[in-house]
Amino acid sequence: MVNEKDVPGNLHWRINVTDGTTNVLVPESGIVDKVWLELKGVLGGLRLEVWRFLLKAWDLGVAEPKKVIHALKVGLALSIVSLFYYMRSLYESVGGNAMWAVMTVVVVFESTVGATLYKSINRAAGTFLAGSLGLGVHWIAYKSGEKFEPIIIGISVFFFASAATFSRFIPSVKSRFDYGALIFILTFSLVSVSGYRVGELSELAYDRLSTIGIGTSFCIPISMLFYPTWAGDELHRLIYRNLEKLADSLDGHVLEYFKDNEAVTEDNFPTKEIKGYKCVLDSKATEDNWAKLARWEPAHGSFNFKHPWKQYLKIGASMPSNLYVTYYYGQTPAGIGQLKKHLSNACKTTNKYSSGIWRELAKTIKTMTKSSDMGSLVREMNNAVQELQNSLKSVPIGLIAPTPEDTDDGKGESFITPVVEVLPVTTLVSLLIENAARINGIVDAVNELAGQVDMKPAPQENSKQYKPSSDTPH
Amino acid sequence: MVNEKDVPGNLHWRINVTDGTTNVLVPESGIVDKVWLELKGVLGGLRLEVWRFLLKAWDLGVAEPKKVIHALKVGLALSIVSLFYYMRSLYESVGGNAMWAVMTVVVVFESTVGATLYKSINRAAGTFLAGSLGLGVHWIAYKSGEKFEPIIIGISVFFFASAATFSRFIPSVKSRFDYGALIFILTFSLVSVSGYRVGELSELAYDRLSTIGIGTSFCIPISMLFYPTWAGDELHRLIYRNLEKLADSLDGHVLEYFKDNEAVTEDNFPTKEIKGYKCVLDSKATEDNWAKLARWEPAHGSFNFKHPWKQYLKIGASMPSNLYVTYYYGQTPAGIGQLKKHLSNACKTTNKYSSGIWRELAKTIKTMTKSSDMGSLVREMNNAVQELQNSLKSVPIGLIAPTPEDTDDGKGESFITPVVEVLPVTTLVSLLIENAARINGIVDAVNELAGQVDMKPAPQENSKQYKPSSDTPH
Repeated sequence: MVNEKDVPGNLHWRINVTDGTTNVLVPESGIVDKVWLELKGVLGGLRLEVWRFLLKAWDLGVAEPKKVIHALKVGLALSIVSLFYYMRSLYESVGGNAMWAVMTVVVVFESTVGATLYKSINRAAGTFLAGSLGLGVHWIAYKSGEKFEPIIIGISVFFFASAATFSRFIPSVKSRFDYGALIFILTFSLVSVSGYRVGELSELAYDRLSTIGIGTSFCIPISMLFYPTWAGDELHRLIYRNLEKLADSLDGHVLEYFKDNEAVTEDNFPTKEIKGYKCVLDSKATEDNWAKLARWEPAHGSFNFKHPWKQYLKIGASMPSNLYVTYYYGQTPAGIGQLKKHLSNACKTTNKYSSGIWRELAKTIKTMTKSSDMGSLVREMNNAVQELQNSLKSVPIGLIAPTPEDTDDGKGESFITPVVEVLPVTTLVSLLIENAARINGIVDAVNELAGQVDMKPAPQENSKQYKPSSDTPH
Repeated sequence: MVNEKDVPGNLHWRINVTDGTTNVLVPESGIVDKVWLELKGVLGGLRLEVWRFLLKAWDLGVAEPKKVIHALKVGLALSIVSLFYYMRSLYESVGGNAMWAVMTVVVVFESTVGATLYKSINRAAGTFLAGSLGLGVHWIAYKSGEKFEPIIIGISVFFFASAATFSRFIPSVKSRFDYGALIFILTFSLVSVSGYRVGELSELAYDRLSTIGIGTSFCIPISMLFYPTWAGDELHRLIYRNLEKLADSLDGHVLEYFKDNEAVTEDNFPTKEIKGYKCVLDSKATEDNWAKLARWEPAHGSFNFKHPWKQYLKIGASMPSNLYVTYYYGQTPAGIGQLKKHLSNACKTTNKYSSGIWRELAKTIKTMTKSSDMGSLVREMNNAVQELQNSLKSVPIGLIAPTPEDTDDGKGESFITPVVEVLPVTTLVSLLIENAARINGIVDAVNELAGQVDMKPAPQENSKQYKPSSDTPH
């Protein structure tokens, strides 16, 4: 079994053993070195890890300076509260209650104005309600004598904590008062327990409310006045950007497919647009969250207090969620060329008006001015769809069950194409027709919004006859 | 202008006036009545509102008893903590620190074990880190003299609060230590501010840590021992239920479409299955959340501590996200009948094996046992797809640009069908082929899972030759 090839392997293995022995020979002086080397390795790895983390953080900060600004605002608010308590100590002792103001700033200061207001109001209301209720229960317990006091308090804590915890699962409570319910449980339990010890319950309750007031009165102005991030603005931007992305995605699909006789490959595949489209699909949860927070925000920019944020959700929901075409790589099958050519113009026209409408809707929302071209654009699009359907009807398909050879009877321009190769074309056409059908729904939703907020017509310069540019990006 | 018909109207109007006067005649005694009536209306409306809310809450409780159980567990934990402090007061004064234990229970007790552990560990670690750091900073500030003390504290609060707030935006921190970072900011600020007043900082820090320990030591056992809800179990159930829903949805689409010569209407349209499918689309965020929490959970049921929860996300992500067919209502166009008939068997067979594989995958995950039929099922499905493609290829389409009449040359079985009417069939076929292509990806993902957790083969009774039932639900 032993052959020439095995010998070098064995030799090599012996050399390894020698190396090992060399290592074993210097343990007395080497243990410190070894530990040091290992420690150095671990520290080096840790340093690299920390360095990578810092680089990632830096990139994030550069990409989204809003997040850095928010972090600085929180730091500022906390420093001011700390200093405020330092100053007050000069003429008055506040004692341990300072912590409630600090705590309020930490938990209430969120990255959007809406979220900050939502938490502030919920915190104040939850504390007030639970404080009053706790005082009442405590009074009843106190009147019932020393024996029943712990029983009554125990039962009431159990009952109210359970009920409030359960209420947080109810959708209408969850969307508006989730944090308030948590604070309710917290305050009610605290009043019950510490009330038992301190005795001066109403003073405690007053202290807590006033320190919460101090905390929020630092948070809200800092949140609203220094580079504010409004949840409403975010929602507004998300919706019109999604409309623009839809237009880009549609253009990307159609123009790419009807490029003259060019093979679609991995390289020229319009991945960016299709990715853009995927974003639209994924933004549902974000939209809901921002709409939830936006309704707490006061008038700002061009939005009133009662701005119909729910209508934005309706617009978002009526955006197509299944406009996804499987792209078929590779050269167009020879037989499809003529069909493609036949449908090319109708498809391109439909696409031009469809994506034109997406863009016009985006502009309407972005500028909050009524478009004067929408009516004619929709009419043109419907005409184009009609034409596309006519083109489809004028492409006849002879359906015969048996093999291809039977029909390949050498007719002038006719040739045979199996159904499977028609799939990409038919899918694309079906996409265009469906998309057009959906557009009317969104146009209605946007018109409703225009009515609700009393949009003015767009200024004259924009109201000239709309011409969708032919150099749409892809 | 006055005619017979006007007179009764006028008379009627006069009677109205009389009624008005009658009302005006009793204002002295009526104001109370009016207010009472209005108040009664408002109260009645409120009562109705409250009643409706309670009914909704009741329905929710009946539908998801887990939520009721969670609420009762929170109530129980809080009552026990309250009583614990009542008992301790008998031999020892604990004072205001009791509130930290109560607060810990309120904010740490979440509806799954994973979330409770995540918050407990984050709270303890954040408090410990920030407490140590705060003590260090405080010592330095104290040594720097009275003048620099507030400056050093102010700057350090600003710096650490900003840095920790920003770190919460970094994905790797956000997914594991979001709550810990919040607690870090809170504790660090509290130590800085209250340390300034109290002086006995290390005692305060020790008290806080021990009360947090007491709070969590009530929460964790109650959360884990009484009817626990494991995030891992939820994720596990979600994934296999989604696979079952996919099978149902696919069956619904295909069987419904190939029903013999029956018109698809609003009434017999399989909405339920398609809705089921939509759920799969929407569960991405839930999956991520549960996977995030599941990794904090200890071994339970058939899951070890290091159960590969991430692999579940991989399985979830490889489920089709665009398997959506636009359903065309109405009678099948006459010309399509033959095409449908031609493709019917191949489509049904492909569907049978595809949805069979979805169900087998669901069973594999559900029972955590390797399926012995998967290999043969996949082979059968691939054969069926091949056959479907062959059937498609044997349906030739003569493509000729001009009008239908040109090809309608009276050949035996041939007839003319416009492309537009082929769309529903081609879309469905394309769906089936794509679905089959995707299945291989999920089968691989599930096999990977089977390798990672060392699944055993399914018991003998299940390993008999798999026969997809022909009466699949739809």
